[in-house]
Amino acid sequence: MAAERDSEGLAAARPMLTDLYQATMALGYWRAGRARDPAEFELFFRRCPFGGAFALAAGLRDCLRFLRTFRLQDEDVQFLASVLPRDTDPAFFQDLRSLDCSAVTLRALPEGSLAFPGVPLLQVSGPLLLLQLLETPLLCLISYASLVATNAARFRLIAGPDKRLLELGLRRAQGPDGGLTASTYSYLGGFDSSSNVLAGQLRGVPVAGTLAHSFITSFSGCEVPSDPMLAPAVGESPGVDLAASVKLWLERVCACLGLGVQEPHPGERAAFVAYALAFPRAFQGLLDSYSVRRSGLPNFLAVALALGELGYRAVGVRLDSGDLLQQAQEIRGVFRTVAAQFQMPWLESVLIAVSNNIDEEELARLAQEGSEVDVIGIGTSVVTCPQQPSLGCVYKLVSVGGQPRMKLTEDPDKQTLPGSKAAFRLLASDGSLLLDLLQLAEEPPPQAGQDLRVWPRGAQEPCTVRPAQVEPLLQLWLQQGQLCEPLPSLTESRAFAQWSLSRLSPAHRQLQNPALYQVALSEKLRSLVDSLSSQGAP
Amino acid sequence: MAAERDSEGLAAARPMLTDLYQATMALGYWRAGRARDPAEFELFFRRCPFGGAFALAAGLRDCLRFLRTFRLQDEDVQFLASVLPRDTDPAFFQDLRSLDCSAVTLRALPEGSLAFPGVPLLQVSGPLLLLQLLETPLLCLISYASLVATNAARFRLIAGPDKRLLELGLRRAQGPDGGLTASTYSYLGGFDSSSNVLAGQLRGVPVAGTLAHSFITSFSGCEVPSDPMLAPAVGESPGVDLAASVKLWLERVCACLGLGVQEPHPGERAAFVAYALAFPRAFQGLLDSYSVRRSGLPNFLAVALALGELGYRAVGVRLDSGDLLQQAQEIRGVFRTVAAQFQMPWLESVLIAVSNNIDEEELARLAQEGSEVDVIGIGTSVVTCPQQPSLGCVYKLVSVGGQPRMKLTEDPDKQTLPGSKAAFRLLASDGSLLLDLLQLAEEPPPQAGQDLRVWPRGAQEPCTVRPAQVEPLLQLWLQQGQLCEPLPSLTESRAFAQWSLSRLSPAHRQLQNPALYQVALSEKLRSLVDSLSSQGAP
Repeated sequence: MAAERDSEGLAAARPMLTDLYQATMALGYWRAGRARDPAEFELFFRRCPFGGAFALAAGLRDCLRFLRTFRLQDEDVQFLASVLPRDTDPAFFQDLRSLDCSAVTLRALPEGSLAFPGVPLLQVSGPLLLLQLLETPLLCLISYASLVATNAARFRLIAGPDKRLLELGLRRAQGPDGGLTASTYSYLGGFDSSSNVLAGQLRGVPVAGTLAHSFITSFSGCEVPSDPMLAPAVGESPGVDLAASVKLWLERVCACLGLGVQEPHPGERAAFVAYALAFPRAFQGLLDSYSVRRSGLPNFLAVALALGELGYRAVGVRLDSGDLLQQAQEIRGVFRTVAAQFQMPWLESVLIAVSNNIDEEELARLAQEGSEVDVIGIGTSVVTCPQQPSLGCVYKLVSVGGQPRMKLTEDPDKQTLPGSKAAFRLLASDGSLLLDLLQLAEEPPPQAGQDLRVWPRGAQEPCTVRPAQVEPLLQLWLQQGQLCEPLPSLTESRAFAQWSLSRLSPAHRQLQNPALYQVALSEKLRSLVDSLSSQGAP
Repeated sequence: MAAERDSEGLAAARPMLTDLYQATMALGYWRAGRARDPAEFELFFRRCPFGGAFALAAGLRDCLRFLRTFRLQDEDVQFLASVLPRDTDPAFFQDLRSLDCSAVTLRALPEGSLAFPGVPLLQVSGPLLLLQLLETPLLCLISYASLVATNAARFRLIAGPDKRLLELGLRRAQGPDGGLTASTYSYLGGFDSSSNVLAGQLRGVPVAGTLAHSFITSFSGCEVPSDPMLAPAVGESPGVDLAASVKLWLERVCACLGLGVQEPHPGERAAFVAYALAFPRAFQGLLDSYSVRRSGLPNFLAVALALGELGYRAVGVRLDSGDLLQQAQEIRGVFRTVAAQFQMPWLESVLIAVSNNIDEEELARLAQEGSEVDVIGIGTSVVTCPQQPSLGCVYKLVSVGGQPRMKLTEDPDKQTLPGSKAAFRLLASDGSLLLDLLQLAEEPPPQAGQDLRVWPRGAQEPCTVRPAQVEPLLQLWLQQGQLCEPLPSLTESRAFAQWSLSRLSPAHRQLQNPALYQVALSEKLRSLVDSLSSQGAP
């Protein structure tokens, strides 16, 4: 966790961030003398989000931070006592005070792994009462992180590898930590950077951003710059008055573009000059405060050319309204004309950034072949996941006291798979993914090159596969409360996510109507399900 | 903020929870010598959420907490220095270190107020640089809080005043604080309680919850209860073996319901007994782990009757799958039969609670006349607001240096209203709401009983209204950084929200295709918009 610092504990979950029924059940277990019964829970989802055929696992780093610091404080226990029956045995609260995760073992999909329905993202084992209390925070930490990482991965698949994707959804998130989680895991899912400064500071996410309309409209053009002098980029020559130089360049630009020199807004130009004085090496213009063609663009060019004369290269422009694709084409055309006219060839390739309620459909348009858009800022639709704002993860008891447990219910969708399990990914000889296999932990792992009879979920018949490779999916992270290996950095997990996605076949990677990826049960697991179901289990 | 404690600062926003462009603009202002220019921003939304005609204002308490503690720490400033140009004047960072909100004045709609498009939820005035840095955190704190409060209010309108609404969405929220915000503001919007313990501890939200399927399935029925004895509710008589008593009662219940005594699941019954031993005064059964009719219901009744014999009254049952309305009717029928049979009349009115992906449509069904459902638990659809997962608030500069400012742009939807403003609600003599009026702060307030020419937004013609009452909308909360009056408690704001909604006409309160509520401009404000537009405004 190299780049992460979170000394103040913000953005960390706390033990009290749980549903009250976990505490009432805890008392129930305790009263029944079962608080320390060894148990195992699995956290998984039942359907892939957004109509796709995959999800990315994420949120593990937050879970590990939470588990390693889990401890009820005196004030927490006092609050619980205030909402539980008054005659509750004080020994129960005494036991709560001493709870920690030193007896918890955690296996999980590494962050950035492909995840499929029914395959555990987390397997948690430890004392029954404690694991029950962990349910809600673990669900809260995994569900949204995985959802937003998956959402971001879809945007990355649409955008292709070269467009820069900037997440700027903090203001649309569910409160402070919603924003921090969104920024962290949209980066993991494939975005390049975030506008969220705290995500940079606490999580090491690259941050980016320039200026908003309010900066532009705060200038009328009548302001007297306190110090308009700017020194050249290199060398010792004296500085020049940037505002005066911009004025001269504006005349030339307007002549070149066939505009009257009065048309570009003086306040917008003053704002650009002020920004250029602060960021001569990173000048960017926001073009649509007044009129892109008649004001924003000529003002930007005047400043960019004045900077160019001093040896600085403007970085880019941003558009936040209108037809973004079409304007980008026009602007690139103007850049080419002006670059040629004034012999500043670098101006041709100044970055064009766009934003304004971009969703998957609009992104596909902006990323199409021949598009002149370089940077795409996405807020609401990556952070709020409007196509499906929750992943619907569940956390289910699979064994207690070494005995498999299963929720039967009359709703077959809500049935669970019993027993402590292992999970494997089976691959063909060309490296393509065949299916994910769930089996009982006690079974020997599947062997590469050997025929295997498995039961695809939902199928009535078994099928036979012969994997060329077998990869275990669940990695041991915590053993009896001890971290077993260091967590990859966020950037490493991001690279792992892209690598994982690259192994998925195009038919499974497709965002609309994809082929479903198979998850299958071993014969032994299938028999256990059948026998428990017929017994009216457990 | 009586019931609120937040000693650890979790759930509070921090100054670094902002978009990077706020920091780059801050440097731009600073370099231009404009850091301390007096400015004013307004925070508002452009369209009501969910296709409705109203929103509830919420999040002010979090904004005040944020503003009053706003201070950049050394490590924050160091991080900003690491992402801003290396040659930035150190005096800029020195100035950032001394920033606080002692020069900030804040007016706002009280929490729980009706809010309409374009009417400011917040008006913030103070030094330009500082107000720019506040943009993102204020948006983050107001947008989601108001969205979820409005969403909760819609659920309350559908449910009617008598059904109990329980929010249980923590596991579906955007990370830890998303959950805390959701629980806080869905209570403000009209829910009765939350499952979220931390919301109870930090915000004083009433908490509720009983047991989940994992508790039930963790029991096989072979467990030996450590202490099955339960004393009667009153008096000094010796305790009885509850498990043994339940066994006897089960035979009678099964005979009464025409079921075989082997049919109800022994593990489920053991779980109910364990829960009843821990909560004899608050026993509830979750009925659908196996079969509601053949197992959950007879097991519940056996335990409830055994408790009843000891003078305890069971509180309720919960259903989490299947047709909730129909099952509730059947269960109530069984309660009536069994209550009569065993002469325990209180059993007739045991609460029936339901949950399972309940949205507005399903809630309308569950709340219909004659429904036997008493308590409705809603998670995902209140917390994630899937109908519209963001409110889209904006924060716009309206004046600087005492001069009005306006964003023109070519997209008329994105134009802003210039100038420092006041807002009033005009009412008819019967107390019904006529419209909200925006005017310049310098104008005298509208007078009750006098004709007034106003320009409804979007209309081409003015109209005349004669209000019988005039209510100022924006209240002064912070003056030069000092809190002007104590904030109402969350419970008071919740009551204010319900009162506010009750004043809205049925046509405006309607959730689908409502009549639009009018927001109008004074003639003076309208002229200012026109004159700035025609000048190509600063």
